[in-house]
Amino acid sequence: MGRLGPGREKRLQPPDGCGTMVAMSKPVKTLVVGASGYSGAELLRLLLMHPFTELVGVTSRQHAGQALPAVFPRFRGAEKARELVFTEPDVAGIVAIGAEIVFLALPHGLAAEFAVPLVESGLRVIDLSADFRLRDAAVYEAFYGTVHPAPEMLRSAVYGMPEIYGVAIRDAALVASPGCYPTSVILPLVPLLREKLILPETIHVSSMSGVSGAGKSTNAQFLFAECNESVRAYSVPRHRHLSEIEQELGVAAGEPVVISFTTHLIPVTAGIHTTTYAALREGITVSDVNRAMETTYADAPFVRLLGEGECPDTKNVVGTNFIDIGWVRDPRTNRLVLLSAEDNLGKGAAGQGVQSMNLMCGFPETSGLLNF
Amino acid sequence: MGRLGPGREKRLQPPDGCGTMVAMSKPVKTLVVGASGYSGAELLRLLLMHPFTELVGVTSRQHAGQALPAVFPRFRGAEKARELVFTEPDVAGIVAIGAEIVFLALPHGLAAEFAVPLVESGLRVIDLSADFRLRDAAVYEAFYGTVHPAPEMLRSAVYGMPEIYGVAIRDAALVASPGCYPTSVILPLVPLLREKLILPETIHVSSMSGVSGAGKSTNAQFLFAECNESVRAYSVPRHRHLSEIEQELGVAAGEPVVISFTTHLIPVTAGIHTTTYAALREGITVSDVNRAMETTYADAPFVRLLGEGECPDTKNVVGTNFIDIGWVRDPRTNRLVLLSAEDNLGKGAAGQGVQSMNLMCGFPETSGLLNF
Amino acid sequence: MGRLGPGREKRLQPPDGCGTMVAMSKPVKTLVVGASGYSGAELLRLLLMHPFTELVGVTSRQHAGQALPAVFPRFRGAEKARELVFTEPDVAGIVAIGAEIVFLALPHGLAAEFAVPLVESGLRVIDLSADFRLRDAAVYEAFYGTVHPAPEMLRSAVYGMPEIYGVAIRDAALVASPGCYPTSVILPLVPLLREKLILPETIHVSSMSGVSGAGKSTNAQFLFAECNESVRAYSVPRHRHLSEIEQELGVAAGEPVVISFTTHLIPVTAGIHTTTYAALREGITVSDVNRAMETTYADAPFVRLLGEGECPDTKNVVGTNFIDIGWVRDPRTNRLVLLSAEDNLGKGAAGQGVQSMNLMCGFPETSGLLNF
Amino acid sequence: MGRLGPGREKRLQPPDGCGTMVAMSKPVKTLVVGASGYSGAELLRLLLMHPFTELVGVTSRQHAGQALPAVFPRFRGAEKARELVFTEPDVAGIVAIGAEIVFLALPHGLAAEFAVPLVESGLRVIDLSADFRLRDAAVYEAFYGTVHPAPEMLRSAVYGMPEIYGVAIRDAALVASPGCYPTSVILPLVPLLREKLILPETIHVSSMSGVSGAGKSTNAQFLFAECNESVRAYSVPRHRHLSEIEQELGVAAGEPVVISFTTHLIPVTAGIHTTTYAALREGITVSDVNRAMETTYADAPFVRLLGEGECPDTKNVVGTNFIDIGWVRDPRTNRLVLLSAEDNLGKGAAGQGVQSMNLMCGFPETSGLLNF
Repeated sequence: MGRLGPGREKRLQPPDGCGTMVAMSKPVKTLVVGASGYSGAELLRLLLMHPFTELVGVTSRQHAGQALPAVFPRFRGAEKARELVFTEPDVAGIVAIGAEIVFLALPHGLAAEFAVPLVESGLRVIDLSADFRLRDAAVYEAFYGTVHPAPEMLRSAVYGMPEIYGVAIRDAALVASPGCYPTSVILPLVPLLREKLILPETIHVSSMSGVSGAGKSTNAQFLFAECNESVRAYSVPRHRHLSEIEQELGVAAGEPVVISFTTHLIPVTAGIHTTTYAALREGITVSDVNRAMETTYADAPFVRLLGEGECPDTKNVVGTNFIDIGWVRDPRTNRLVLLSAEDNLGKGAAGQGVQSMNLMCGFPETSGLLNF
Repeated sequence: MGRLGPGREKRLQPPDGCGTMVAMSKPVKTLVVGASGYSGAELLRLLLMHPFTELVGVTSRQHAGQALPAVFPRFRGAEKARELVFTEPDVAGIVAIGAEIVFLALPHGLAAEFAVPLVESGLRVIDLSADFRLRDAAVYEAFYGTVHPAPEMLRSAVYGMPEIYGVAIRDAALVASPGCYPTSVILPLVPLLREKLILPETIHVSSMSGVSGAGKSTNAQFLFAECNESVRAYSVPRHRHLSEIEQELGVAAGEPVVISFTTHLIPVTAGIHTTTYAALREGITVSDVNRAMETTYADAPFVRLLGEGECPDTKNVVGTNFIDIGWVRDPRTNRLVLLSAEDNLGKGAAGQGVQSMNLMCGFPETSGLLNF
Repeated sequence: MGRLGPGREKRLQPPDGCGTMVAMSKPVKTLVVGASGYSGAELLRLLLMHPFTELVGVTSRQHAGQALPAVFPRFRGAEKARELVFTEPDVAGIVAIGAEIVFLALPHGLAAEFAVPLVESGLRVIDLSADFRLRDAAVYEAFYGTVHPAPEMLRSAVYGMPEIYGVAIRDAALVASPGCYPTSVILPLVPLLREKLILPETIHVSSMSGVSGAGKSTNAQFLFAECNESVRAYSVPRHRHLSEIEQELGVAAGEPVVISFTTHLIPVTAGIHTTTYAALREGITVSDVNRAMETTYADAPFVRLLGEGECPDTKNVVGTNFIDIGWVRDPRTNRLVLLSAEDNLGKGAAGQGVQSMNLMCGFPETSGLLNF
Repeated sequence: MGRLGPGREKRLQPPDGCGTMVAMSKPVKTLVVGASGYSGAELLRLLLMHPFTELVGVTSRQHAGQALPAVFPRFRGAEKARELVFTEPDVAGIVAIGAEIVFLALPHGLAAEFAVPLVESGLRVIDLSADFRLRDAAVYEAFYGTVHPAPEMLRSAVYGMPEIYGVAIRDAALVASPGCYPTSVILPLVPLLREKLILPETIHVSSMSGVSGAGKSTNAQFLFAECNESVRAYSVPRHRHLSEIEQELGVAAGEPVVISFTTHLIPVTAGIHTTTYAALREGITVSDVNRAMETTYADAPFVRLLGEGECPDTKNVVGTNFIDIGWVRDPRTNRLVLLSAEDNLGKGAAGQGVQSMNLMCGFPETSGLLNF
């Protein structure tokens, strides 16, 4: 149960489906800090349509003073959006406005500056940046190149992957929402590592991401004419997301895991596709794999197991909070090929953050997220 | 009010927003005939998420026997979709299943074969094809090249553009949902023609459509490698949609209207952008235009008037039921340039059909359509 | 014949085709000022492959000191490219290096700063910017918002459209190479205006351009994620190119011409498609149109007349110097619909500049430009 | 030296560059069988521009009787193309027309039907299909599902990868031009396997291809609206190209090699990007890798070694015959990550075929292929 008190549990049923009876006391007040980029926009979209929350504020240094639809014309049709104006980010103001759940859609490093005082003020924070994903400040420094700004909070922060840390998320004060690539790598592998079906040292991962993953930065390499009809690897061999991937794979395996991980930029706006290889341990069959997958994700509403022999397609998940996972055993090599697809802005960022919020507030996990 | 009886009006408030109280008697039963193409898929998506209806059947000759998610993997996450199996289209079966509103997503010509017996059986039909859009069977024959299959029904069918025919749609037995291009052309022009602000004989229209508009037909000219990095006009000078466009412009003008209309195929999946020129009558100012637009669409929830000097972008409307309209007067020529953007599958097809259904059933007009 | 002297005419035949005999004295030395953008890159590509010229220098403030392939990896395989290093642009240096033909691929305003001293130094200049395209400095000021930097040179500059000004280009010291949109608008209309087949006041033009037309500027609106799955009009109602379009249409018509012109951004890297409407004068038939087109462009190697009823596609011209033109008469309105397609960087910019160079140097007009 | 006789060697220098002296006796006569798809079109493009050959015929069952530009409008500007008409494929006719080099751009299985009689008639054949790439008819049957149609010719056919089999290609009667994926996988690995720098059993390959690789078949899954904004793996775990990849890697390694290989479809028209992992043998350094690469490809004009730490981009090779190769050692795993990019229709198909032809005819290897 969430920390927001008993009043919120009064509803009888979620308003999904027809002819239901819904009774809610008061909506939870949400606020987004730094809502100028693509993850921030997707977050706003989800919060504007969420049935049990009210978006009470949006901040952005760049857009302060502008109405929400002026920055994001897509939201012109949302009544609530027309009332909202971007403000300067300011902890005191956020507290004063009565926000209960604050999302941080800020660059790493900057997020911690807000997360610490907000949590100290008793607000609950869902941070989409990388600042609190790693348990070890030294790993943060090695991968992000700066001393961690608030190492003391790394212990209490919860890695915001509801399928893995659902229980802890319910009561968390600070949720570190996972990166887009990590979500697509960790979810397929966790069942196999936990049940020791694969050899961790044989993991090779090749991921492809849409260009929205690069953010709204005006870098010439992300211009349309540079990305269209183009495919390229980047950040080889050590993308920053590798740090949280290996951390979480290590937790699942019960031992340190070191993998190969290569990221590629492809000309789609949204979507991540990840192909992962891992050698099956001796004697392990595909049935074991099937069973581990099905057992682990039996109650995970957003993990769609396509099953053995099926290949996911990003077009089936873009705009949603689903991750589709398929797998194939290659009898020639006895390696398992895992294929996963998600929306980098959805399950890979904003959607997963909202999923965590649902747990934190005691809402049904799927509230506001059942889009197809 | 719709014809479905008083029980449906009992709800106090639509379940849009937070903390509302909703009480519904029974959902309206809907069924889609011919749901194998892109408009059909979008229709299914909207109906699966609609709060006041239940999708009780889907038919498709091509996919009969297949489960809905097997054909449209995007719907794997929808509980209702997992229960549905495509059946052979059959009027008796549709009646037997208890469908109240039947959508036809069939090719023109074929739609009439179902519309006539279904309406005669007392069901209400929303036809996404061109079969009942024209009031004059001779015009149909001239543009579609075949004798109209059911000319006697042309009089009772209502052109399903809620902003123009909202009152008639509420009580219609047969709604002929407009074409994708026509929606983007008619809505910007109607206020100006009705109020005689422009000279009808000066109208020139240039439209661009995404490739989903060509349907899921396996024609080599719509292969990715043929459409990507390609722009071309087609069906010049007489696209079939010209017939319904001129019919409706004529109604608004109170006199026959003949226009120039050119369609182009551009490499986007969804979206239509239409640029329309029309000479302003002497003495007419942009203020007159602004006023006509605002008055006409004051209560139209899906027409977003961007106003003078603003250019719409399809990316702000794709996936929604909105049409964005901007306009500019060119002082050099005293011509008005009207710019409109919509989703060809949304407001241009399935969304508009659902909007009509909302009116027919007495639901709030925006039910199930407020996506951003 | 070009001004470069008799030695260059000694070759017997161009080296196009097989088994020919070619004898050339010395290659013409070319240099590109400001070769950092997309037009500049395309120009370098053409010059690196040109059979009768030698690229002796490239300048760029931004890239000074960098090797050509470091900035444009596509040219890594060109031996000549590997020898070239970007230098700071400097008139004295350009003269010293022995350049005979200098291309300016600079922003408007800046181009004039180089064009004037280079021409005064006896070099021949092909300017891809807008600085010398207009004959009237007042029009320049009205459309570009600044006083023309060198109005005295407007008279001697030749508008670099070889199909129209081929004779003058041969001997020009300063060629003002046309804009991308204007090329696609002017070429289809000139034959019709010259022969008075259409009513100039009825011209309406709707053009679509690929994103490379916006240049390599790091403006967020041209990011992949902003342009992909997006179509929008811009610079309505008075794109800067309108000035040169109307100038040249006026020359052809023998009277001032004022038109409607709307530009749209579509998600392709390269390519412009233009759709033009014009009312036929009374008594004019499509045969008259056909004849005017064929007569005017009988000797124009890069104008491909698809003929009546044919629609061009940008994919057939991208990467080439061709412009494809088709047309259709609409009997309902007696308007002609003209359709043209070109590569905005090819015939719309760099290719056309090289075509002018070929004329200036006495080379065959197609030298180095016969790509398919 | 090629088998075409001494006359062809008389030219002094290739006509690449300026001011050269070229003397050729007679062009080599080429013909393309089955030129209706994307590889066929690219082949025609290259042959139409080739300086030392004459395209004397094109066949296609589908297009017999149509002029070349009617099928491929892009070639409208090529004088030679305007003279050519598609004919029915027929061995006697091909011999009669005097073709010396015959390219087969046919589906596998069908190619053999032409290759055998053509070679027996003394013509030289470059087959772009898979029919003669494998030395072992049993492997062909295992991967292609049919008995090999002409196993006796497998021994004499030469695998048409000029960087590996250049000497044999010069005198070959039948060249089996490699598949698109294999080219991008084999070239980066051969130097490392030959010099035993990597462990063959650790090779994992992840490739992404543009949609033209699927051919011009009218399969709904390759429609624009199905491929745009989509990424998916396919043919997992055993794409047909795996057979020739492992064959050639085995030759290089001197022992059988079994690898993991996964192919993905991405929304670009052309281009393949391949990411390959392989564990370095103990004691091997990146310097060893660099040296092996540089030595092996010192004289390979189309292999562009970007070097250590560099990532290739398909946009730099599309439309060319180059393959760009970069690599990075991951110190955490001691694995090498190899990155390669090529045009699937260029170096991956038609370009490589022309490169073989150049060797067979004694032309400079780069003749007609130096595009950037």
